[in-house]
Amino acid sequence: MNDTSTIKVGILGFGTVGQGTWKHLEENADFWEKILGVRLIPSRASVRTLDKERKVRIPSDLLTTDSQSIVDDPDIDLLCELIGGIEEAKRLTLQAFSLGKSVVTANKALICEHGEELFQAAEAAGVHYAFEASVAGGIPIIKVLRESLVANEFPLIYGILNGTSNYILTRMENEGASFDSVLDDARELGYVEADEALDLDGVDAAHKAVILAYLAHGLWVDLKDITVEGISKISNEDLNAALKLGCKIKLIGVIRRNFDNNHVSVGVYPALVPMAEIIARTDGVYNGISLTGSVVGTVVLTGRGAGQDPTAGSVISDLVDVVKGIKGISASSKLVHVSPNQCLPAQAIEIEGCYYLRLSVYDKPGQLAKVAECLADHEVSLATVSQSPQGENELASIILTTHQTNEHSIARAIESLEGLDGVRGKPVLFRMFDPNPEKE
Amino acid sequence: MNDTSTIKVGILGFGTVGQGTWKHLEENADFWEKILGVRLIPSRASVRTLDKERKVRIPSDLLTTDSQSIVDDPDIDLLCELIGGIEEAKRLTLQAFSLGKSVVTANKALICEHGEELFQAAEAAGVHYAFEASVAGGIPIIKVLRESLVANEFPLIYGILNGTSNYILTRMENEGASFDSVLDDARELGYVEADEALDLDGVDAAHKAVILAYLAHGLWVDLKDITVEGISKISNEDLNAALKLGCKIKLIGVIRRNFDNNHVSVGVYPALVPMAEIIARTDGVYNGISLTGSVVGTVVLTGRGAGQDPTAGSVISDLVDVVKGIKGISASSKLVHVSPNQCLPAQAIEIEGCYYLRLSVYDKPGQLAKVAECLADHEVSLATVSQSPQGENELASIILTTHQTNEHSIARAIESLEGLDGVRGKPVLFRMFDPNPEKE
Repeated sequence: MNDTSTIKVGILGFGTVGQGTWKHLEENADFWEKILGVRLIPSRASVRTLDKERKVRIPSDLLTTDSQSIVDDPDIDLLCELIGGIEEAKRLTLQAFSLGKSVVTANKALICEHGEELFQAAEAAGVHYAFEASVAGGIPIIKVLRESLVANEFPLIYGILNGTSNYILTRMENEGASFDSVLDDARELGYVEADEALDLDGVDAAHKAVILAYLAHGLWVDLKDITVEGISKISNEDLNAALKLGCKIKLIGVIRRNFDNNHVSVGVYPALVPMAEIIARTDGVYNGISLTGSVVGTVVLTGRGAGQDPTAGSVISDLVDVVKGIKGISASSKLVHVSPNQCLPAQAIEIEGCYYLRLSVYDKPGQLAKVAECLADHEVSLATVSQSPQGENELASIILTTHQTNEHSIARAIESLEGLDGVRGKPVLFRMFDPNPEKE
Repeated sequence: MNDTSTIKVGILGFGTVGQGTWKHLEENADFWEKILGVRLIPSRASVRTLDKERKVRIPSDLLTTDSQSIVDDPDIDLLCELIGGIEEAKRLTLQAFSLGKSVVTANKALICEHGEELFQAAEAAGVHYAFEASVAGGIPIIKVLRESLVANEFPLIYGILNGTSNYILTRMENEGASFDSVLDDARELGYVEADEALDLDGVDAAHKAVILAYLAHGLWVDLKDITVEGISKISNEDLNAALKLGCKIKLIGVIRRNFDNNHVSVGVYPALVPMAEIIARTDGVYNGISLTGSVVGTVVLTGRGAGQDPTAGSVISDLVDVVKGIKGISASSKLVHVSPNQCLPAQAIEIEGCYYLRLSVYDKPGQLAKVAECLADHEVSLATVSQSPQGENELASIILTTHQTNEHSIARAIESLEGLDGVRGKPVLFRMFDPNPEKE
């Protein structure tokens, strides 16, 4: 460490995730300094070619095509290895360890192939090697498996570990589009890796499954020894037939442990997953992982499996853990979001939303019209209305849903409704929850 | 610390979670010693009455009705506060801090009411105060929020935070049973807290929502200032009407932050949640939490919200974190499940399961019978069969699903099918994924 008040971060590989990491470190430098007591400074980055246009622009003297020079730079304290591939990445990582520098990586292929050697080298050098970003992008599966569920043994871990193939299957299913046409779209959107087999043939998912099997069972399974099948033989006919059987076809990684003989099986293949499983209903570029633990039961995590921001977020969270380790800040010490602007409690009255309303009324003509008029008087506008008799008495239920309104208007409307001729008892009111209110 | 090779744990409150924690610590003492380099010894526990029959039996001289004596015991290094309630728990916790002892707690009410004071006291005393078990049982929401998603700000966090009310709503919905009859069942099953209002009126969920709001936004919201509504006014009619609107009624805790004015709103109330949300489909005693982060997008976690094992698992994971903190073991250091019996890679051939099979055949009489016979010859038994013409050519698709069989049998059957007269091209085979194979 050159200066105890700063940590200089070198970024090997300045693609989408590398740029996202740089941008975030720069934008939130004050925040991290407050939390960690040390300033994280993104200092140098390596690229394949210098003259390419990039979204995140940094001074040209901080860019180099020579990754090795960043690793060797005595000013650089900590490295993010985001170049991918095996040989160069491995050499650079080991070199960093030998210089006493910790490494944060998103390189699942490298860990899958040489994890044991790299972990041992990091341990021997007394440095950290953190790899949350290598599996399932923004889903914090590594930490959950290693730390939160540490009291468990895992008879079953399974899930969707590759967002690209899941995107293709979801569009085939929803639109009846052919595999080839959806694949063309996915290529155009930049969803498919340069080496397409990684996504389509299950290899990327298999890398991740091998890492999860290691974390759960301490066993390195050789990629060559496991079943790895891709999505190319799945037809629209299969997807439809699966739906009729109450299932969806998903490309899943499956890690089972048989506790009778302690055998661990790892496989990646398309399978019919029952609709009752959250994994079956995890669509598009989302990943989902279901962990069945001996103590906790089944825990399921879903989230974006890839992309600049989720993966950069995992890189950052690993960086923070590593810096806490270096600085001796315990994981369970207080760490709370400190907003640049102090948060304030909101007043209930500010809350806007749509509402569901059920009224008991005497079942006579014109009753619905009176109710609707009363709501209109309070500027509550209706989205749906239905009225149905309540069995054998002379009462009917009116069920209404409203457009966006605020709690104040609806409260006054309810008060008026209670006093309305023909309305019996207290109206029942529930909010309609909208997870994306910004759309309105 | 009395002896650097052991840590003696005192358990305040020996109910289901306390007993689960004791049992786990005792059964897995060797495992933890290997991981932590220190032996965790459950040493004393406090109870309300000594003469009650308990599932986990421990020597009677380790039990006391005097919690204070355990806190003060110089042999006890670390405490688990599982007695619940406010005043006594607070006093014991502060006393532990003042003696330099860290505390792991599942007490959401206490943290909700006095979190700020307790966190400050722990910090001042240089001890740990860990509370993963206080929110959502086995779901590691605290760690995910504090550590994994540390690079995010959160416009929206919402979810099901009380398993008992969710159990009641799910049974009302599935069976058309009345609120009162399901509540009686829930009482008999021991799902309802002694103070029923905590579960049914949303207060328990509100305690947890306040803690989540603090972790996400650094703001202590006063329980008195937030909307807290329970499930008692939800009728079967409402649940049905919601389904028709494409929603389910769930008791949700909602924490929204408006980034324009930095207002944070917290509320707990029944709401109609769109079926597309995982939260809407989180049923029974399960909890589910959806976090929308500025960097990661939406991450959803589901799992058992309460119960002996999931909550004890969270207590254990906190204990491990605290001990790692005390022993200076970094969070990102290697920590892998070490099985008492070394795991072995399974052979693919051992894998049993059901299969989906699609064949293209010439559409002539007797074809299906020939296929079925061929499968029977290889001892593959059929679960479902359907045949349909493939549009305008003379081909038909036969879609079959099998009962449980092994990969070896199905592989030989496929080989025979390929050579069968009238079968065209390679059969398409997918596994039927069964999350609970032990049922068969």
